[in-house]
Amino acid sequence: SKHWHPLLLATFCLQSLQVFGSDPELTSDFKVPDGENATALDGNFFTFPGFRNFTANPSDAPLVTTMRADLSNFAALDGLGISSTLVVAPPGTVNPPHVHPRASELVFVLEGTVDIGFVDTTNTLRTQTLKEGDLFIVPRGLVHFQFNNYQTTAKFINSFSSASPGVARLPTTLFGTGIADAVLVKSFGVNADVIDKLQEAEGAGTQPGY
Amino acid sequence: SKHWHPLLLATFCLQSLQVFGSDPELTSDFKVPDGENATALDGNFFTFPGFRNFTANPSDAPLVTTMRADLSNFAALDGLGISSTLVVAPPGTVNPPHVHPRASELVFVLEGTVDIGFVDTTNTLRTQTLKEGDLFIVPRGLVHFQFNNYQTTAKFINSFSSASPGVARLPTTLFGTGIADAVLVKSFGVNADVIDKLQEAEGAGTQPGY
Amino acid sequence: SKHWHPLLLATFCLQSLQVFGSDPELTSDFKVPDGENATALDGNFFTFPGFRNFTANPSDAPLVTTMRADLSNFAALDGLGISSTLVVAPPGTVNPPHVHPRASELVFVLEGTVDIGFVDTTNTLRTQTLKEGDLFIVPRGLVHFQFNNYQTTAKFINSFSSASPGVARLPTTLFGTGIADAVLVKSFGVNADVIDKLQEAEGAGTQPGY
Amino acid sequence: SKHWHPLLLATFCLQSLQVFGSDPELTSDFKVPDGENATALDGNFFTFPGFRNFTANPSDAPLVTTMRADLSNFAALDGLGISSTLVVAPPGTVNPPHVHPRASELVFVLEGTVDIGFVDTTNTLRTQTLKEGDLFIVPRGLVHFQFNNYQTTAKFINSFSSASPGVARLPTTLFGTGIADAVLVKSFGVNADVIDKLQEAEGAGTQPGY
Amino acid sequence: SKHWHPLLLATFCLQSLQVFGSDPELTSDFKVPDGENATALDGNFFTFPGFRNFTANPSDAPLVTTMRADLSNFAALDGLGISSTLVVAPPGTVNPPHVHPRASELVFVLEGTVDIGFVDTTNTLRTQTLKEGDLFIVPRGLVHFQFNNYQTTAKFINSFSSASPGVARLPTTLFGTGIADAVLVKSFGVNADVIDKLQEAEGAGTQPGY
Amino acid sequence: SKHWHPLLLATFCLQSLQVFGSDPELTSDFKVPDGENATALDGNFFTFPGFRNFTANPSDAPLVTTMRADLSNFAALDGLGISSTLVVAPPGTVNPPHVHPRASELVFVLEGTVDIGFVDTTNTLRTQTLKEGDLFIVPRGLVHFQFNNYQTTAKFINSFSSASPGVARLPTTLFGTGIADAVLVKSFGVNADVIDKLQEAEGAGTQPGY
Repeated sequence: SKHWHPLLLATFCLQSLQVFGSDPELTSDFKVPDGENATALDGNFFTFPGFRNFTANPSDAPLVTTMRADLSNFAALDGLGISSTLVVAPPGTVNPPHVHPRASELVFVLEGTVDIGFVDTTNTLRTQTLKEGDLFIVPRGLVHFQFNNYQTTAKFINSFSSASPGVARLPTTLFGTGIADAVLVKSFGVNADVIDKLQEAEGAGTQPGY
Repeated sequence: SKHWHPLLLATFCLQSLQVFGSDPELTSDFKVPDGENATALDGNFFTFPGFRNFTANPSDAPLVTTMRADLSNFAALDGLGISSTLVVAPPGTVNPPHVHPRASELVFVLEGTVDIGFVDTTNTLRTQTLKEGDLFIVPRGLVHFQFNNYQTTAKFINSFSSASPGVARLPTTLFGTGIADAVLVKSFGVNADVIDKLQEAEGAGTQPGY
Repeated sequence: SKHWHPLLLATFCLQSLQVFGSDPELTSDFKVPDGENATALDGNFFTFPGFRNFTANPSDAPLVTTMRADLSNFAALDGLGISSTLVVAPPGTVNPPHVHPRASELVFVLEGTVDIGFVDTTNTLRTQTLKEGDLFIVPRGLVHFQFNNYQTTAKFINSFSSASPGVARLPTTLFGTGIADAVLVKSFGVNADVIDKLQEAEGAGTQPGY
Repeated sequence: SKHWHPLLLATFCLQSLQVFGSDPELTSDFKVPDGENATALDGNFFTFPGFRNFTANPSDAPLVTTMRADLSNFAALDGLGISSTLVVAPPGTVNPPHVHPRASELVFVLEGTVDIGFVDTTNTLRTQTLKEGDLFIVPRGLVHFQFNNYQTTAKFINSFSSASPGVARLPTTLFGTGIADAVLVKSFGVNADVIDKLQEAEGAGTQPGY
Repeated sequence: SKHWHPLLLATFCLQSLQVFGSDPELTSDFKVPDGENATALDGNFFTFPGFRNFTANPSDAPLVTTMRADLSNFAALDGLGISSTLVVAPPGTVNPPHVHPRASELVFVLEGTVDIGFVDTTNTLRTQTLKEGDLFIVPRGLVHFQFNNYQTTAKFINSFSSASPGVARLPTTLFGTGIADAVLVKSFGVNADVIDKLQEAEGAGTQPGY
Repeated sequence: SKHWHPLLLATFCLQSLQVFGSDPELTSDFKVPDGENATALDGNFFTFPGFRNFTANPSDAPLVTTMRADLSNFAALDGLGISSTLVVAPPGTVNPPHVHPRASELVFVLEGTVDIGFVDTTNTLRTQTLKEGDLFIVPRGLVHFQFNNYQTTAKFINSFSSASPGVARLPTTLFGTGIADAVLVKSFGVNADVIDKLQEAEGAGTQPGY
């Protein structure tokens, strides 16, 4: 991990450029990107065509395949308090437990059936089986996941209450970033070999870009 | 118009109940509705099934048919800064120019092709032809519209950066609410008979619940 | 309209410079303009003298004459959540229906009498005849207008809950920006010749800088 | 609680909370007061006529006479982020140094000439002589004052970026509320008899309702 | 877990009462609790004495002992955007990875030495060894933990940028709330017996009230 | 005061750099300082070690000695809505009445006993004697002070609901910045010689960097 993945580098660069961004209360209709002129921004600037014909990547299994449209690749969202992620979930795939630090998430099922769940700060798990056409709301900052436990592929689009919701994927966050074994052993109350297996799974790169 | 339409009355009642709602910065994970207990709120509370099998109402033509999922009918959204509207647009229908006073709108095309446009506060019109899978962002508070100028029905879901975006449909707002003729004649710079025709069109009830 | 009006160009330039502006929650007492030093900013920086001796422009009739003091010409307002517009309304003039996407408006009548009205998102029109000394509040993002239907000139100052409220003048927005005839015909439920007359009126430049 | 009608219960709960409502991000066009119905709110609800014919109270001298129009007496402002105070300043009167904890202030001079000043958090005093028609901005939370050091009465209207700016009048706050002498003596670095004189002045009730 | 723990019930009740609470932009100096009168609120209302003489609970080991002072037990914080938690960490104890959905956290070390770490949304772990007197900032919504890997007890006070930051303790959230085994197996990429061990550890109640 | 104190100059420079800063709603996990790269920011960036071994400066008496950790010297706080000040109060010292225009303050007593008080906008003074371990909340923008009227040194850490709360020290603000004598005489209702004594005390530089 001494060599930086291009995506990571891009993310860092982006972060530097966004340091003053803020979702609420623009003082203009929209944010003109640095170095550009409002007059040159036509309808294409406000359009994100990247979701067209998006399909599952089989090598992602057993995880879902996702694509985001947020401040990182759709500049017109800047300051407007909304963004989306498209998810394709073939049968048997999961979207692992994760957190969006800066947004609530409104799930809309485009096709298929999918199980969803979130855990609130009183440690209450709420789950639901969503069918095509259903909306489901996940409150800001709470741990949630999706699971296609059905026979056909599910597709859903998640909309967020921020142009840059961020995502902390918990399996990676906890077991793939180098948190000391002693912390994990004591925190999860299990033996070091259990922690080792969790870290190996992450190290083996089973986590694609969900 | 001395008799109140039931929908209007419902809206007023709703308004009274919502007067303290506020999108930003909850101090709890979500808002428990008045008189209810968090423990009794299961996954159904966080689910809106009303969009399933939603179809166009032919009598709405030449306008689109829409259904909202916001604070008025999906209580779990309260304070979470997001909501959605589903729109079905048969060939030739329009979603007339309107404004959402409290939200930006992120359009996602579910099927078909649709033209969209918005006008910013410099009087610049930006338009785009959206295809299935496209996202388009309309900044907060700006006048915008959609038009299915194509051969097949279009469907799109609009997500908003507020649980209660509100909507001011401009044809109705301007010509169907009783603004004095003198104001309209002078504002639009046309003769009274032109204003009359616009008011008649609204009075004739050609505006369904878009 | 191929040649850009200097005011429009100025607006665009301004927009580029303001892209990170935000009304709420400064982390300094005020915003020092880019390239300036706080020590050099004396009382003049916090003063806007442009409203002195402001008078009606007769050629604006039948519309009112207005002047704004906002982020575009009074830099000290940046981030402070407030701005103003001065309006002079000779007898018979109107301030056409318009929307401020980013602010509520508090009207204070300096002299004369003026009718005011706004339409909320339940399509309810509320009107009032304001006398000298009256305050009237227009909630954020709603369509509103003023009309001096009296014998003497009226003057009022409108204060806004944003340093950059923005304004979308609806006659221009709808009929002077190039929205396709088909959209307007279907939206307003009138024949193309009615729409033509509305568009001609805008094209004829009857809308000054209100 | 079986005897409470849900609406009454809501009324009770909300009553105490209402005054603490929050300026930003309503989820309705405006706030309907507790126990009222939106349909019954006509133009009068949105109008504050209290400033008509407001005049200086001679017994206020050497202080200005003021009247506020904020959440305390103009309910329609609730949640809309703006309010106003009218000030009449006969020759020789001052508006003593004070702070608005929740708002910036935009001063508009209606008649006469007045000196204004504020001190920022770097201890820099900025002053200006304002003439009729001038606007002056005082950033949020800073100490400021006005002084009519001229021959004719001045009138100005102050608009605030909150429906409830609050005011802490410093002479009263410091010397009229019972802060212990020892604290004041050490804070201001003067003898107890100097503090006594300041406290006597406040105790003598020379501070009217400015 | 069919019987509700009194603390959990209290939390739920609280949630119902807080549903309109909001950290930003009060319209009063502070929030008077429902049914109380501002005049009766003396200095005690603004004081939280619960941290006096707070000590570690040995039975919490290997976890730290914590006490919160937030909206749930210190009503005066309501709407003021700040709260605190006191933590006592005997040698060898950890504060397991957790998330505060509604706040950043500023750690101040009162005594001893403690290791801290957080993982951002680019999966970068940042750690630091904090000594007495050090401050450390954990950005909003990110996974973080503390570990006293030293010979003496550490104490630190964490301040939050919300009166109600909330906390999702990840070991409990993930393995103690009933998330389906299939979801966890696929998400963490390990065998069911590894997941079983993690769930058993939680079920065995090794997680005190940190 | 014609020569600028280096601290003042530094403050001004800082102000220029901060002009776009905003506490709420980052669109990234944290703000990367201009010209830096997120990858190079390790745990040290998120740590403020300046409070270690901080002690009272005897020459500050009769005032307390303070050190701030905010946006001016701890860049990682930018946008995260929190900061702190450490205060050491030897017996008999006071923290003079002051205002933080942009934050509430949560006081935590580290050692000793200290009297605290604040005055709300209804001119009500609330005081409390705080002991080691106590928390006390001062609502945003209100005048407050501390006084160690006891035999041993007190230490407390004040946390703020903004990364840049700002401070207006009222003795200096009122009597050390050049506000005209006439304004002060009339505002405080005392003779010019009383005002002179207050101004001399400030001019004599008895106000250190509290």
